[in-house]
Amino acid sequence: MSVLNQKLEWRYATKKFDPARSVPAEKIERIIEAIRLAPTSSGLQPFELLVVTNDEIRARIRDVSWNQGQVTDCSHLLVFAAWDDITPERVNMMFDLTNEVRGFRNEGWEAYRQQLLGIVGARGTEANYQAAARQAYIGLGIALVAAAFEEVDATPMEGFDPEAVDAILDLKSKNLRSVILLPLGYRADEGDWLVNLKKVRRERSKFVTEIK
Amino acid sequence: MSVLNQKLEWRYATKKFDPARSVPAEKIERIIEAIRLAPTSSGLQPFELLVVTNDEIRARIRDVSWNQGQVTDCSHLLVFAAWDDITPERVNMMFDLTNEVRGFRNEGWEAYRQQLLGIVGARGTEANYQAAARQAYIGLGIALVAAAFEEVDATPMEGFDPEAVDAILDLKSKNLRSVILLPLGYRADEGDWLVNLKKVRRERSKFVTEIK
Repeated sequence: MSVLNQKLEWRYATKKFDPARSVPAEKIERIIEAIRLAPTSSGLQPFELLVVTNDEIRARIRDVSWNQGQVTDCSHLLVFAAWDDITPERVNMMFDLTNEVRGFRNEGWEAYRQQLLGIVGARGTEANYQAAARQAYIGLGIALVAAAFEEVDATPMEGFDPEAVDAILDLKSKNLRSVILLPLGYRADEGDWLVNLKKVRRERSKFVTEIK
Repeated sequence: MSVLNQKLEWRYATKKFDPARSVPAEKIERIIEAIRLAPTSSGLQPFELLVVTNDEIRARIRDVSWNQGQVTDCSHLLVFAAWDDITPERVNMMFDLTNEVRGFRNEGWEAYRQQLLGIVGARGTEANYQAAARQAYIGLGIALVAAAFEEVDATPMEGFDPEAVDAILDLKSKNLRSVILLPLGYRADEGDWLVNLKKVRRERSKFVTEIK
């Protein structure tokens, strides 16, 4: 088995974190960096990351997250927040950044910018948000791998009231919408009902079809 | 820099594959296994994977994918296909599998099954498909890491006509909808405009907000 797949076997959706254990800053930074390096459609990175360690804010988030203890017991709470729309300003910001980083303007790239501006303009706000939210899940997938490599436990969570979390984190003023919570920390020694249960996945033959 | 982040720096969206080079089967299997191990909301794994090596089928997919050469030049074309709905049958299939693998029925888990059946029943077909499609992107994120660890090049592609691909692969009869294409292979020695250009990401301060 590959090292990566060993890490994927090791990880699980932690149900009970040890509130006394904190994840070292350098591990958090490497996980954040992996998320920042996640590729996204047209290179837009149409989401942002919030790293919440404030206890009072986390208690309020827990209140709108079915009272799930991981929100307050974890070491760092990551919130993936997608762009609420893919506006011309945001497209141009990323295309301009690309030109700046690469040090030149390219005719093909500029033609693609115009094409993309046409697509997102025609698609409308809600569909643009949905497309942005999907990209956040690429970041989530990579974050889960990154945490596992750091031997940090993590719990992807969709079970929360997004509008309430947006209000708590003032995301509307940033034109963002919360999509996923990802508590990071260390599993508690006791009280986690899932930790010793077998991982369940459909077998390969029910998941993969080969077309030869 | 962590080994993972080195791999993420190495990878890029390959624009030109070498059609003469094939990825060894054991590498493909490890990448597939990583995707199969991807965690998903409520453990449903609401997507499947198609591995297309058939030349004629790939030529037809290329025709409905803006004629992008990666579709036919790659070694293996992965197609991520999400459930077109999250039906009671599918929910029950995964909950029953969980009981079978773990060897017991649990009251809390059975209560959660009923709660989830209520949620997906109320949400409706299109919203269920959208939720399933998001989960496929977790698999995509992990697939990109897995490919990089195998030193296999990969190109995530949303630029195709999903309904046309569904028709070519007969996905409707399986109640699936194509979401992402992921050609895997090896970069060509020449003809890739992106290979030597700098990776572009927003800097940390424009991507991350800390709430302390």
